[in-house]
Amino acid sequence: MAIYAVGHKNPDTDTIASAIAMADLWSKVKEETKAIAQGELAPETAFVLEKFGVAAPEVVTDATDKKIILVDHSDLAQSLDNLDKGEVVAVVDHHKLGDVTTSNPLEMWVWPVGCTGTVINSMYKFYNVEVPKEVAGVLLCAILSDTVMFKSVTCTDADKAAVEELAKIAGVADVTALGMEMFNVKSAVAGASMNELVFRDYKDFDMSGNKIGIGQLEVVDLSVFDDIKADLYAELEKVKADGRHSCFLLLTDIMKEGSEMLIVSDNPAVVEKAFGVAPEGTSVWLDGVMSRKKQVVPNFEKAFA
Amino acid sequence: MAIYAVGHKNPDTDTIASAIAMADLWSKVKEETKAIAQGELAPETAFVLEKFGVAAPEVVTDATDKKIILVDHSDLAQSLDNLDKGEVVAVVDHHKLGDVTTSNPLEMWVWPVGCTGTVINSMYKFYNVEVPKEVAGVLLCAILSDTVMFKSVTCTDADKAAVEELAKIAGVADVTALGMEMFNVKSAVAGASMNELVFRDYKDFDMSGNKIGIGQLEVVDLSVFDDIKADLYAELEKVKADGRHSCFLLLTDIMKEGSEMLIVSDNPAVVEKAFGVAPEGTSVWLDGVMSRKKQVVPNFEKAFA
Repeated sequence: MAIYAVGHKNPDTDTIASAIAMADLWSKVKEETKAIAQGELAPETAFVLEKFGVAAPEVVTDATDKKIILVDHSDLAQSLDNLDKGEVVAVVDHHKLGDVTTSNPLEMWVWPVGCTGTVINSMYKFYNVEVPKEVAGVLLCAILSDTVMFKSVTCTDADKAAVEELAKIAGVADVTALGMEMFNVKSAVAGASMNELVFRDYKDFDMSGNKIGIGQLEVVDLSVFDDIKADLYAELEKVKADGRHSCFLLLTDIMKEGSEMLIVSDNPAVVEKAFGVAPEGTSVWLDGVMSRKKQVVPNFEKAFA
Repeated sequence: MAIYAVGHKNPDTDTIASAIAMADLWSKVKEETKAIAQGELAPETAFVLEKFGVAAPEVVTDATDKKIILVDHSDLAQSLDNLDKGEVVAVVDHHKLGDVTTSNPLEMWVWPVGCTGTVINSMYKFYNVEVPKEVAGVLLCAILSDTVMFKSVTCTDADKAAVEELAKIAGVADVTALGMEMFNVKSAVAGASMNELVFRDYKDFDMSGNKIGIGQLEVVDLSVFDDIKADLYAELEKVKADGRHSCFLLLTDIMKEGSEMLIVSDNPAVVEKAFGVAPEGTSVWLDGVMSRKKQVVPNFEKAFA
């Protein structure tokens, strides 16, 4: 029985790159492992895989009778269907500890760094395995993406050191140029449906029994949303209506280093409770807020508690 | 705010040694950390700490407003009270993944090895910190204890390698002699009441609707039970009479690598069904059976199904 390495739903670059890297590393040090994904690639990720000549992982959504390595998440809501009918043999992550449990002892590498790719780079060193050139390329991009080119509050020295090491292996001379190229792809909204945009980087959370959806779009200039913000908001209302207490969409300006948050909620007051800033109408500007994981989710969790 | 390293309730040697070692390591690489324990030391653990000149951790049972490192467990039921009112910053373990969750990213080192001490030995190497001599001694004993001197089915090559490394640092020339000394302390039954002995390492299980109690006493020589076996059996009958279908007490001889099982049951035939060996009177010798978790419980579960 092969092992399958898989990231969270609505895969981003870190989730895909980490699944690919873990499949490579685990196949070399433990057992044959295959990278899979829970959905189609985002444009940024497709750009990265093409850039380094790596094939997209097959889409698989059910864990039944499979051995599974979870990367970049440990929440049941973000994981494969029927995870309890498979066996989680390892978890590699950089988030808070979620509600996945196991019946058997397992291997876990979870660090409070900016990107799962940084953890996996250290695992390669720990296991004395060289990172293949193309894997180094995708891991490098994953770190640039998750840390918003080192600007995110989640970025640590370990992430910067990993990028330096991986750039050498991947033969990338100008990391900043690569990052800008990647974020320009990510910023493109033309041709995408509103539904695609809301779900491009979207996660559901359980907060004190409330289902809370939080999406994020990171761009180099918020003006790309000028013509579509009303349509995005209407789409967010639809998503919220599907059994959720609240839906938030972060429009993050990576150059200005802050986010405009669109708000649809049964209790909009929770936003001021969480961030100390009163919304103007249906949105609020959160200065300095770029990280859903470290800045948005913990504040909402406290506000909902 | 200091950080506190703590193992599970009813602390055993691995839980105490791991809390002590993590407090040392974390204080050196991160922040000031103090080892605590959820209860008084078992005789084996007291012997180990005295042997290597290490003070017993203070008993603390509440996590409120504390930063916590969990060692040797990740289950809420085995952890401090009010864990949700503290903050878990790290988990180091070798069990299945339990139901602890966190609000913030954390550091986790969880490996499928025989002892948490083995994981911590690797963490010292990862962080380039030398294991202090006395910490090496207690970690070494933790591994010998949890792996029953390498005889447990849970023991891995990583555990053996860690013992070799730690013995050098601790200046222990004869690991087997140390292990025997430690298990002799654990084997002591003098002064303990029959009730204490039955419940020293006891768990109730639900098997197809039947309440089944299984206790275990690991000793280096079964002759310590010669004078008290009848009294132990009478105590077991009392425990069984308290609403249980069966009560079994494993008297495990770690040198002969097998267990004598005392049997009190509404249906004693279940023992032969489970193990293929007919009891002689009220007990049976189970050759090679040392692990309740991996060998006894699964066989009984099948027999009761």
